[in-house]
Amino acid sequence: MKKTLKELAELFNGTVIGDNAAIIDSVSPVENGCKGSIAFLANPKYKKFLSDTDCSAIIVKRDVTESSTNLLQVDDPQDVFRKILLLLKPPPEITESRIHPTSVIGKNTDLEDPVEIRALTFVGDGSLIGKYSIICEQTYVGKNVRIGENAFIHPRATILDNTIIGDRVIIHSGAVIGSDGFGNVFKEGKYHKIPQIGNVVVGDDVEIGANSTIDRAAMGSTVIGNGCRIDNLVQIAHNVELGDNTALASQVGIAGSTKVGKGVVMGGQVGIIGHLVIGDRVMLAAQSGVVKDIPEGEYYFGTLAKPHLKYKKIEALINRLPELFQRLKSIEKKI
Amino acid sequence: MKKTLKELAELFNGTVIGDNAAIIDSVSPVENGCKGSIAFLANPKYKKFLSDTDCSAIIVKRDVTESSTNLLQVDDPQDVFRKILLLLKPPPEITESRIHPTSVIGKNTDLEDPVEIRALTFVGDGSLIGKYSIICEQTYVGKNVRIGENAFIHPRATILDNTIIGDRVIIHSGAVIGSDGFGNVFKEGKYHKIPQIGNVVVGDDVEIGANSTIDRAAMGSTVIGNGCRIDNLVQIAHNVELGDNTALASQVGIAGSTKVGKGVVMGGQVGIIGHLVIGDRVMLAAQSGVVKDIPEGEYYFGTLAKPHLKYKKIEALINRLPELFQRLKSIEKKI
Amino acid sequence: MKKTLKELAELFNGTVIGDNAAIIDSVSPVENGCKGSIAFLANPKYKKFLSDTDCSAIIVKRDVTESSTNLLQVDDPQDVFRKILLLLKPPPEITESRIHPTSVIGKNTDLEDPVEIRALTFVGDGSLIGKYSIICEQTYVGKNVRIGENAFIHPRATILDNTIIGDRVIIHSGAVIGSDGFGNVFKEGKYHKIPQIGNVVVGDDVEIGANSTIDRAAMGSTVIGNGCRIDNLVQIAHNVELGDNTALASQVGIAGSTKVGKGVVMGGQVGIIGHLVIGDRVMLAAQSGVVKDIPEGEYYFGTLAKPHLKYKKIEALINRLPELFQRLKSIEKKI
Repeated sequence: MKKTLKELAELFNGTVIGDNAAIIDSVSPVENGCKGSIAFLANPKYKKFLSDTDCSAIIVKRDVTESSTNLLQVDDPQDVFRKILLLLKPPPEITESRIHPTSVIGKNTDLEDPVEIRALTFVGDGSLIGKYSIICEQTYVGKNVRIGENAFIHPRATILDNTIIGDRVIIHSGAVIGSDGFGNVFKEGKYHKIPQIGNVVVGDDVEIGANSTIDRAAMGSTVIGNGCRIDNLVQIAHNVELGDNTALASQVGIAGSTKVGKGVVMGGQVGIIGHLVIGDRVMLAAQSGVVKDIPEGEYYFGTLAKPHLKYKKIEALINRLPELFQRLKSIEKKI
Repeated sequence: MKKTLKELAELFNGTVIGDNAAIIDSVSPVENGCKGSIAFLANPKYKKFLSDTDCSAIIVKRDVTESSTNLLQVDDPQDVFRKILLLLKPPPEITESRIHPTSVIGKNTDLEDPVEIRALTFVGDGSLIGKYSIICEQTYVGKNVRIGENAFIHPRATILDNTIIGDRVIIHSGAVIGSDGFGNVFKEGKYHKIPQIGNVVVGDDVEIGANSTIDRAAMGSTVIGNGCRIDNLVQIAHNVELGDNTALASQVGIAGSTKVGKGVVMGGQVGIIGHLVIGDRVMLAAQSGVVKDIPEGEYYFGTLAKPHLKYKKIEALINRLPELFQRLKSIEKKI
Repeated sequence: MKKTLKELAELFNGTVIGDNAAIIDSVSPVENGCKGSIAFLANPKYKKFLSDTDCSAIIVKRDVTESSTNLLQVDDPQDVFRKILLLLKPPPEITESRIHPTSVIGKNTDLEDPVEIRALTFVGDGSLIGKYSIICEQTYVGKNVRIGENAFIHPRATILDNTIIGDRVIIHSGAVIGSDGFGNVFKEGKYHKIPQIGNVVVGDDVEIGANSTIDRAAMGSTVIGNGCRIDNLVQIAHNVELGDNTALASQVGIAGSTKVGKGVVMGGQVGIIGHLVIGDRVMLAAQSGVVKDIPEGEYYFGTLAKPHLKYKKIEALINRLPELFQRLKSIEKKI
C-alpha cells in the first residue's frame, strides 16, 4: 500500500488537517511511529502523542484538530484503522482453482470453482468445499464434510467427518473440529466408550483459534453460532451450543451439553461445568469457574463464580481477614 | 441399522411392551425423538417424556410398564443404548492390509497383517504396528514405536520415538505422545536442557483426547494405566504415572513425577504439582489446585484443594463475610 | 555409551572412590539402579541409598566418601549427570544436506548447507533455514520465515509466515508459532477481524513445548527472549514480550501486550491479563491469576494474585473462618 493522505480521506469519508500529499505506506502504534506510518488515537490517555509522534499522520475523531503531525478526521478511528490494515494485508483472493499435486482428494468430492487445495492436504470422500475457499497445507478434511464459501483453513488444521462449516469461516493451525466427545459408561470396573454419532455445525463468519478442540455431539450437533470468536487452546465439549457472536478467550473450557447464549464474553481460562444455561450477553472474568446457570446480562467472577460486585466485595473482606482476627481478639480481651 | 423392536429385544435380552414390529433405524434423546428413533430413560426426571415423545420406542428398566410409545425393558437401559449406538457406528474393521502410496514407511518396520496406514502418514524405522490397527492420515509414528492390536490412531496424531502403546487404544487428532519432559538445570545464568531419555508406555483400552500432550520420562517411563480416559488438551508431564481406569477431564495438568492411583476422577482444569501421590479412587472437582498428597477415596475441591465438605463450609462462610464484619462492628459499638 | 568409571572421571574432572574399571553403560535414579547404571545424589534425603543401591556408581559432591558402591566425586553432580545423559542421547548431527523427496519446498528459499528437511514437510517461498538445522517430518514452515542454525523442529510443528527464529532453538510437535492474534472490533452487532500484520521473533537457545501457541503481533512483534523455556499447551497472545531466560510451565496463558521481564518463573496454569508489566525475576505459583503489574523480584500466588506470604496468611485465616464465626457467636451471647 502506498497512498496519499488525501486518497485515504476519500476512501474513508475523512477530512485531512495538514498535508494532503503526505505519503502513507505503513501503520504503527501512535507512540512508536516512523515516516510514512499512520496510527490511530482512540484512548484519550495517549493524547500527548498528538504533539510528540514520528507518524506521518494520526487518525482521530472529528473533534480533534491540533497536532504536530497530519490528522485524518473520521467518525470511527479504530474502524478506519482496521480498514487500512485490510489494505496492507488483504484477504487472499483466488480466481482459478488450484489443487496441489501432493494433496490427496477422495471420491465424489464437490470442489466448487474456484477453490485452492494446497500441498499435502487430504480431503475425504463426499466432501464439499465452497467456492473461493482455501484449504492450506497439510490440513485434514474428513468424509462428508461441508465447508462454505470464502473459508480460510490455515495449515495443519483437522476437520473430521460430517462437520458442517459456514461461509467466511477462519480456522487456525492445529485446531481439531469433530473429535469424539468424552462419553463413557463405567460398568463392571471399567469404562466403555459411548460411540459419538453426532457432528459439529459451525455458523458463518466464525473464527476458531490455534490448537482449539471442538468435539462432535454424542447425538445431534455441537453448535457454534454465527459470528463467534474462539481463541487458542479452547475446549468445547460434545453437545455444547454457543449463541451468535459469542467470544471465548484462550484456554476456556466448556463441558458437555452446556448452552451458552448470544453475545457472551468469557475471559481466559474460564471453566464451565456441563448441562448449564448461560444467558445472553453474560460476561465472565478470566479464570472464573461456573457451576450454576447464569441469567442473561450478568457479569460474574471467581472460582464458584459470583456476581462481579459481590466478588469484589468478598475479595476485599478476605484481604481484611488479618485485621478482623485482630479486632476479634481485642474484643475478647475486653469482655 | 434397520431392525424391528423384536429383533433388538432378542439381541439384548429385553422385553417389548407394545409393537414388536416397530421399525427402529436411528437413536435420539428422549425429549427430541422422531419416527424410527429409539431413546433410553435413565434419569427419573425425564419420566414425563414416557407419555409425551415422538420416539418409536424407549429403552427402560424392567419395572417401567406404561408409556404412550413402545417400550423395550432391559436390565441396564444406558448400556443397551450404548450397544445400539455401536450397531449404528460400528468400529472400523479391516480384512486386508492397505498401505497408502503417499505414506512414508521406514526401514525394518513390522506392519502386522492386516493393518491400514492411510495417506501422508509417516512410520519410522523399527516400529511395529499390531494387526487390525488403523493409522489415519497425516499421523506421525516415530522410530522404535510399538502399537498393539486394534488401535485406532486418528488423523494428525504424533507418536514419538520409543513409545509403547497397548491394544485397543484410541488416540485423537493432534495428541502428542512422547514429547520431551520440561527438564532443565539453571546454571551460570541460563537454562541447560536435561536430555530426556525415557519413554511413554500406554496400557490397553486407553483413549487419549485431541491435542493432549504426554511427555516422555526423563529416565524410565511415563505410564498411562490400562483403561484410562484422557480428554482433550490435557498435559501429563514426564514420569507421571496414572493407575488403571483413571479419568481426566479436559485441560487437566499433572506436573512431573506425580503418581496418580487407580480409578481416580478429575474434573476439568484441575492442576497438580509435581512429586505428589494421589490415592486410588480420589475425586477432584473441576479447577482444583493440588499441592499435597491426597489419601485414597477422598473428594477434594478448591485452589489449594481441601476435602470437599470442608471446602463447601468455608465457601459458605466466605460468602457470609459481609455479615460478619457488620456483626463485629455492632459489637464494637456496644462495648 | 560404554565407559569405565575412570574414563568418566577424566571427562568430567572427577575423582573415583572404588573401582576405576567399573563399566558404566546406562543411567538410573539412585533408588532404582542396576548393574552398569550410574546415578547422582543431589538431594540429601536420598543419602540412605549410598549404602543400599544396585547402581554401579553414584555421582556425589566432593565431601561424600562412603558408600556400598563406587563413587564419582565432582563439583556439581547434577550437571555432570546431565552431561552423561548427553553422551547417551547426543543431539542429532548432520554432515550433508538431505531434502526428503516427499517434502515440498517453495521458491527462492535459502537452505544453508548442511540442513535436513524430512518427509512430508512444507517450506514456503523465500524462507531461510540455517545450517545444521533439522526440520522434522510433516512440519509446516510458511513464507519468509527465518530459522537460525542448529535448530531442531520436531515433527508436525507449524511455523507461520514471517516468523524469525534464532539459533539452537527447539520446537516441539504440534506447537503453532505465528497464528493470528485475537483482535476484533465489535461494531454494529458483530465482530470484525483486525488484520494481524506483525510477526513472532524467537531468540536464541529457546525451547517451545508441544501444542503451545504463540500469536503474531497485531503490529510489530511478539517477542520471546533468548534462553526462554516454554512448556506444553502454553498460550502467548499477540504483542506479548518475554525477557531472556524466562520459564513458563504447562498451560500458562498470557494475554495481549503484557511485558514479562527476565528470569521470570511461572508455575502451571498461571493466567495473566493483557497490558501488564511483570518485573524481572518474578515468581508466580501455579494457577495464579494476575490482574495487576508486579514489581521485580516478587513471589506471588492466588486468584487475584497476592504476595506469597500474604497469600499464605490469608489462606490460613480462611481455613479458620469456622472458628471465627464460633467465637463471634459466643461474644454476642455474652454481651
